[in-house]
Amino acid sequence: MVNNMKMDDTIAAIATTLGESAISMIRVSGDKAIENISEIFEGKVDLRNVKTHTAHFGRIADENGNTLDDVVCIVYRKPRSFTGEDVIEICCHGGIHVTKRVFERIIETGIRPAQPGEFTKRAFINGKIDLTQAEAIADLIKAESDRAYITSVRQLEGKLSKDINKIREKMIDIIGLLELELDFVEEDIQLIDKRKVNDMIFETLREVESILKTYKFGKLWKEGLKVAIVGKPNAGKSSLLNTLLQEERAIVTEIPGTTRDFIEEKIIVDGIIFRLIDTAGIRETNDPIESEGVRRTWKIASESDIVLFVHDCTVPVSDEEIGFLKKLDELNTKAEIIFLNNKIDLENSHDETFKTGYESIGLSATKRIGIDELIGKMKQFAVTGDIGEGSSVIITSERHYSALLKAKDGLIKSLESVKHGESNEFIVVNLKYALDALGEIVGKVTTEEMLNNIFSKFCIGK
Amino acid sequence: MVNNMKMDDTIAAIATTLGESAISMIRVSGDKAIENISEIFEGKVDLRNVKTHTAHFGRIADENGNTLDDVVCIVYRKPRSFTGEDVIEICCHGGIHVTKRVFERIIETGIRPAQPGEFTKRAFINGKIDLTQAEAIADLIKAESDRAYITSVRQLEGKLSKDINKIREKMIDIIGLLELELDFVEEDIQLIDKRKVNDMIFETLREVESILKTYKFGKLWKEGLKVAIVGKPNAGKSSLLNTLLQEERAIVTEIPGTTRDFIEEKIIVDGIIFRLIDTAGIRETNDPIESEGVRRTWKIASESDIVLFVHDCTVPVSDEEIGFLKKLDELNTKAEIIFLNNKIDLENSHDETFKTGYESIGLSATKRIGIDELIGKMKQFAVTGDIGEGSSVIITSERHYSALLKAKDGLIKSLESVKHGESNEFIVVNLKYALDALGEIVGKVTTEEMLNNIFSKFCIGK
Repeated sequence: MVNNMKMDDTIAAIATTLGESAISMIRVSGDKAIENISEIFEGKVDLRNVKTHTAHFGRIADENGNTLDDVVCIVYRKPRSFTGEDVIEICCHGGIHVTKRVFERIIETGIRPAQPGEFTKRAFINGKIDLTQAEAIADLIKAESDRAYITSVRQLEGKLSKDINKIREKMIDIIGLLELELDFVEEDIQLIDKRKVNDMIFETLREVESILKTYKFGKLWKEGLKVAIVGKPNAGKSSLLNTLLQEERAIVTEIPGTTRDFIEEKIIVDGIIFRLIDTAGIRETNDPIESEGVRRTWKIASESDIVLFVHDCTVPVSDEEIGFLKKLDELNTKAEIIFLNNKIDLENSHDETFKTGYESIGLSATKRIGIDELIGKMKQFAVTGDIGEGSSVIITSERHYSALLKAKDGLIKSLESVKHGESNEFIVVNLKYALDALGEIVGKVTTEEMLNNIFSKFCIGK
Repeated sequence: MVNNMKMDDTIAAIATTLGESAISMIRVSGDKAIENISEIFEGKVDLRNVKTHTAHFGRIADENGNTLDDVVCIVYRKPRSFTGEDVIEICCHGGIHVTKRVFERIIETGIRPAQPGEFTKRAFINGKIDLTQAEAIADLIKAESDRAYITSVRQLEGKLSKDINKIREKMIDIIGLLELELDFVEEDIQLIDKRKVNDMIFETLREVESILKTYKFGKLWKEGLKVAIVGKPNAGKSSLLNTLLQEERAIVTEIPGTTRDFIEEKIIVDGIIFRLIDTAGIRETNDPIESEGVRRTWKIASESDIVLFVHDCTVPVSDEEIGFLKKLDELNTKAEIIFLNNKIDLENSHDETFKTGYESIGLSATKRIGIDELIGKMKQFAVTGDIGEGSSVIITSERHYSALLKAKDGLIKSLESVKHGESNEFIVVNLKYALDALGEIVGKVTTEEMLNNIFSKFCIGK
């Protein structure tokens, strides 16, 4: 199914981030890698004659023989390379101009600039890695927290594939048995007890569900939790945001190129990413601009995993606020709402949490009171729950999640067929549907569209 | 003189730009490089036993044996490495988080994070490269244009060192002759004709001057020309800037982190960088804010290499403008002032250049008339003049320029000694002064302060 991909040409890309640094690396892969680079490389040896996995100092020359840069070429001969093809990695000096010039020179030899993810795609197609490992590479590069990072490293090691393949093998065994029985259907020989079939399918179903359960945490670890800070104007929302950002344990990083309506700040606590969003103060208003701000606040609150409702406890809890809390509850049923009695350091503060029906935390954003308790509660929400016992892996990918749901669906249907005493054909059809769904995860079953969709999300040079 | 540098420890740095890319490289150099990395690297082979210039796939593990990343380690054994020490280059996946984690793990083994330029400094101290080559690496990485780039590549190849060393050898020959004669001074034997000495010194002086001359162009090619666009308000300065930026031949790049008062835009024409600065319109004013703008405009004009004086030729050349041109002439005697009759496409335009004493170009920034002529004139200013015949190199460094000036000074003084019939001692003292000055360029004569000053400007990992 991957025959129509153009795999017979040689590709090149700058594999490091372009900037003023010590070294840049340009990666070349394909049948002509060694031949073409040896044309422009001058060193003590001819690259065509060197052993695999060896590094060679020399220079890249332009068409007039003038030096473009001093480089080191590392040669990997097929199939012992990342892509499974002949690969040369050219390390040149890390300037923007020099790297571009060396890259242009490589392209001049008839090598084509690579598409995003094309090296990894070739590695997959040549059987060097499976699809979950290919995807793990993209996740690993983008990982922002330790949990996201570790999850992708485990996946890169092949732990997910191993688990999926084990389940698939069990399915293949069951299918084998059922199909064998089909051959003897006219003789009416029953080779296998249907209760046994039922138990075997049920076991695979349980294993699929066990992995499915991990998605909630995998997604959370990869993407983090969205935390909306809401409340009436002057309740102390911005002070709370600033205090959270200043927490010693927090690593603060900016999100470049954000297109969101509100600025999102990020803190990472014990490897969990919290995406904090300060919102416009909510209140009933007729002012059109303010209304727009309030509308957006509700939108953010409805999309968040945690809502921090900031109340100024030097004033009574108003009916308006009670109304807001009710509306929050309706808009976002899955979110954790944390009611915060802010400004408790002030003399005239009162705890009127009883009016709200929520638990609360007494807080002073400016005096840093209650911050530890709040962070503890946020963390608790992030790690509570059954991660899925027996599962050594965590899935983080929407694609894997969908495929597992399909597998689960197939397995449930096959169980029903067993239950209703339907013929083996029906059971097998649904089992095969489940088998193919799992095959999509590891890349045993692929389509061109699916692969393009996966690899187009990679960076160039990967 | 470099004895007090700490050279006996092992250093590491991330050598590529940190970002989301396919690959990052961490470079390690020093006696413990192979020993320490082999502790955390698990592959098919033990890095302690591998040959130099070989690449090895494996994984970096944390203290619990869990994988941090799959990597390739390239081993270079001393003295056959960039620094002359044992070097390992570790290629890991190019994410920010993963690269930092692998780097931290390397530091945990007792390897020290490198200072800026420390790898290159070790290469210099271990005699792998001379000082001009070390400096060329820094310039090469920062090169923004082809001319700057090529100049630094030539210097990296050792062309400057070769020329400097040839001159030094000649000086050493002369000094040798003069000192030999000193040994026979009591016998009053004259071994060498003083006219011959004069000619030989004069020849080296000419060679030093020939290299000195190239600095004007070297500096220009490296840093580019500063072009101020000045004129009365509404003369069309901003339109001219935009038109120049849109020129097809121009490659426009932004200058990040600029701290200048005005925004500087950059165009590169035929490898020459022009740094264009649009200024506030100049006019007599009492408004304090506007005065400040005008003050800055004069400052920029006084620091520029080229001043484009934009005149709206639909109105007469005013006495005020004539006054401005005079002031420009006084403020900046070295700059090329180009008088531009802008808006010549309009019906009521007049050429009154004769009032100014300058040559002019008829221009329409909006209709793109005269732009080619203007760019041609700017280029002409950049490349006109004697680059210094006989000199195969271009110097771009202030440090080299100063040293050559010192050498020139010493040579002139020694010539005077010859002329005045002074004793050989006096001639030799000045020749040695010149010799040492040239020695500073290639690094034969160094001080700790000088080296620190040079290498602290490098990026980390270089």
